[in-house]
Amino acid sequence: MGLIVQKFGGSSVKDAGRLMNAARRIAAAYAGGNSVVAVVSAQGDTTDELLEKARELNPRASRREMDVLLSSGEQISIALLAMAIEKLGYPVKSLTGWQAGFLTDSTHGNSRIRRVETERLRNELDKGNIVVVAGFQGIDRYDDITTLGRGGSDTSAVAIAAACQADLCQIYTDVDGVYTADPRLVPGARKLDEISYDEMLELASLGAQVLHNRSVEMAKKYSVPLEVLSSLEEKPGTIIREAVKMEKMLIKGVAKDDHVARISIIGVEDVPGIAFRIFSALAARKINVDIILQSVGRDGTKDISFTISDSQAEEAMEAASELRELLGAKDTACDTNISKVSVVGAGMESNPGVAATMFEALSDAGINIQMIATSEIKISVLIDRADGGRALRAVHAAFFGD
Amino acid sequence: MGLIVQKFGGSSVKDAGRLMNAARRIAAAYAGGNSVVAVVSAQGDTTDELLEKARELNPRASRREMDVLLSSGEQISIALLAMAIEKLGYPVKSLTGWQAGFLTDSTHGNSRIRRVETERLRNELDKGNIVVVAGFQGIDRYDDITTLGRGGSDTSAVAIAAACQADLCQIYTDVDGVYTADPRLVPGARKLDEISYDEMLELASLGAQVLHNRSVEMAKKYSVPLEVLSSLEEKPGTIIREAVKMEKMLIKGVAKDDHVARISIIGVEDVPGIAFRIFSALAARKINVDIILQSVGRDGTKDISFTISDSQAEEAMEAASELRELLGAKDTACDTNISKVSVVGAGMESNPGVAATMFEALSDAGINIQMIATSEIKISVLIDRADGGRALRAVHAAFFGD
Repeated sequence: MGLIVQKFGGSSVKDAGRLMNAARRIAAAYAGGNSVVAVVSAQGDTTDELLEKARELNPRASRREMDVLLSSGEQISIALLAMAIEKLGYPVKSLTGWQAGFLTDSTHGNSRIRRVETERLRNELDKGNIVVVAGFQGIDRYDDITTLGRGGSDTSAVAIAAACQADLCQIYTDVDGVYTADPRLVPGARKLDEISYDEMLELASLGAQVLHNRSVEMAKKYSVPLEVLSSLEEKPGTIIREAVKMEKMLIKGVAKDDHVARISIIGVEDVPGIAFRIFSALAARKINVDIILQSVGRDGTKDISFTISDSQAEEAMEAASELRELLGAKDTACDTNISKVSVVGAGMESNPGVAATMFEALSDAGINIQMIATSEIKISVLIDRADGGRALRAVHAAFFGD
Repeated sequence: MGLIVQKFGGSSVKDAGRLMNAARRIAAAYAGGNSVVAVVSAQGDTTDELLEKARELNPRASRREMDVLLSSGEQISIALLAMAIEKLGYPVKSLTGWQAGFLTDSTHGNSRIRRVETERLRNELDKGNIVVVAGFQGIDRYDDITTLGRGGSDTSAVAIAAACQADLCQIYTDVDGVYTADPRLVPGARKLDEISYDEMLELASLGAQVLHNRSVEMAKKYSVPLEVLSSLEEKPGTIIREAVKMEKMLIKGVAKDDHVARISIIGVEDVPGIAFRIFSALAARKINVDIILQSVGRDGTKDISFTISDSQAEEAMEAASELRELLGAKDTACDTNISKVSVVGAGMESNPGVAATMFEALSDAGINIQMIATSEIKISVLIDRADGGRALRAVHAAFFGD
């Protein structure tokens, strides 16, 4: 009997049926003796409809007015969800972002939450009300409406949970938890009961697409226990919290990311400062670099390769071409026909067998490894995209069985 | 070179074309050296779509949540209108009801404006911004969203004009002004250049359907000059302000109201207190009575007839039947097959010829008058509904020519 924050995304409130379903989840938690705050996104297609209206009128509309427009989407869904809860006979109040005390910076369209003033929210909870809060939105210090950008509603939910010191923040989604691999690609994938924040962060950035990193980072920072679970089926999901058993090696999952491109700058003079010049030029263009590989110098030159999101491939190649001239490099190359396959799990550093197991599985499957990168809790390899699915299944089988 | 408030209704912002049209009107006023506040309703069908969503989910939803839901409609239209103005290259900020400082009572769905705190609005105007404000909505002292009910957006516009001491409040509508009669019924109807608040109030209550009485009453109270004009054609409309030439007799218009029912209580004992008992019983049922006619007592009894809105006919007849038993009256009757035709104009009391002219016109047309009621600025007659259109044209012709 504590305070539970439940977050429902756009597809979980997309029509009357889904809204009633979400309302029943909320009512069940409330009837179980908990205080409940529900955080909601805009309905499935509302945002698209609003964007289309704006685009038709003025494709270069200001971000401030886009925020006023789009934030109406969550206002609609909080009212509808509150009505659904009223229908079940429970006391409820809906609150918009500003009513719920979400104070953000002024970066319209991609604001950061500065703080949540929970006085109003707490008052409503103290009165015994279920509170339905609009996710994704807040106000800045000028009282202007802001939106949080990608992953915003998850972040809103975690921020409220942190501000109210909630006992649990449940994220209801289309999937029923975090899996050892994408079940659509790996039939033998298994649901995890528990995973640490860091492991989740690595999996999310590898394309597991369950939670946005931003919300997991905030949950880690404020030690908010998360649960990812299905909005459709009634069963436990996956709990995300600080790892307790650090000594025990446990691979948590295998992920594949196809949205990768590799850029190579070939035959650069082997002198100090080269890497700095390359990666500061990329940073200036706001290009996020993932894996970096530098060949051993030979004939006084070296090759530098790095991977980026394929959506930035064109821009990165422009930068690479400029750098080629600037640095007197021999050539540049771009390969978008690759995939990144990774295994994630805490305790990997003290278990050297993990890399060997992974490389053996790939070798047995006859798959060539182009690049390797490792961190404390992750090993990633770059392979030919045609081998991606096969590689994922082979590595998963090696760690989790068929 | 002053402050102009312009109000655009739902049909004036219903699509991208109309929004651009409204934006051009606003920009023109701004380019002419004025400070401009635009007050906007929800787009034509947004409100209907939102109501349908609510109805599907919970037909007995609370008024509080209905207000949260419906107020998103104006939030969408302020953002879109601001985007349209941005497209024309003018500086603009949209403000929701709470941002614009509309403080109301807590009667959700039908709130009254308590005051408008104009600090934010004035700041934006001082910075040279056009300000687009959401009509129809505000917040109460608990920071809950409220809506103003029927005529709400007109009332919002007038309230802002009053609070900012605007020089003019323009109401853009589908018609291009106030006419001497409904142009759809009377081909010879003429547009008025000017009309007083009181005359407008009488015409509005008679079914002229141009402005809601609530907004005219507020305009009169705070001496806000109104102009009713077309959102589609660029020409002057009708100015509504305090009458200046009180001595001069001027019939302003002729109106017909078909939504009238007459209830009669026949053969009531002719003693004091009867009228009180009848009309207090009706007031208790919140039935608004318009014309009252009491026959001269005869045989110790009298008949009392009154007119009401036909939407309340059934309820009024129930009351009449109860009163019949209570008062020992002989009979009750209800006639919904009637129309009320009225002439409106200040200075009528000092010009006895008006009634005569009206009655002569009806007599010449062979139309029987069932009831007559007069006020300082109005003469109304009740006639058979079949004669309604003919009566309207005959009376209009008598005062304004064919």
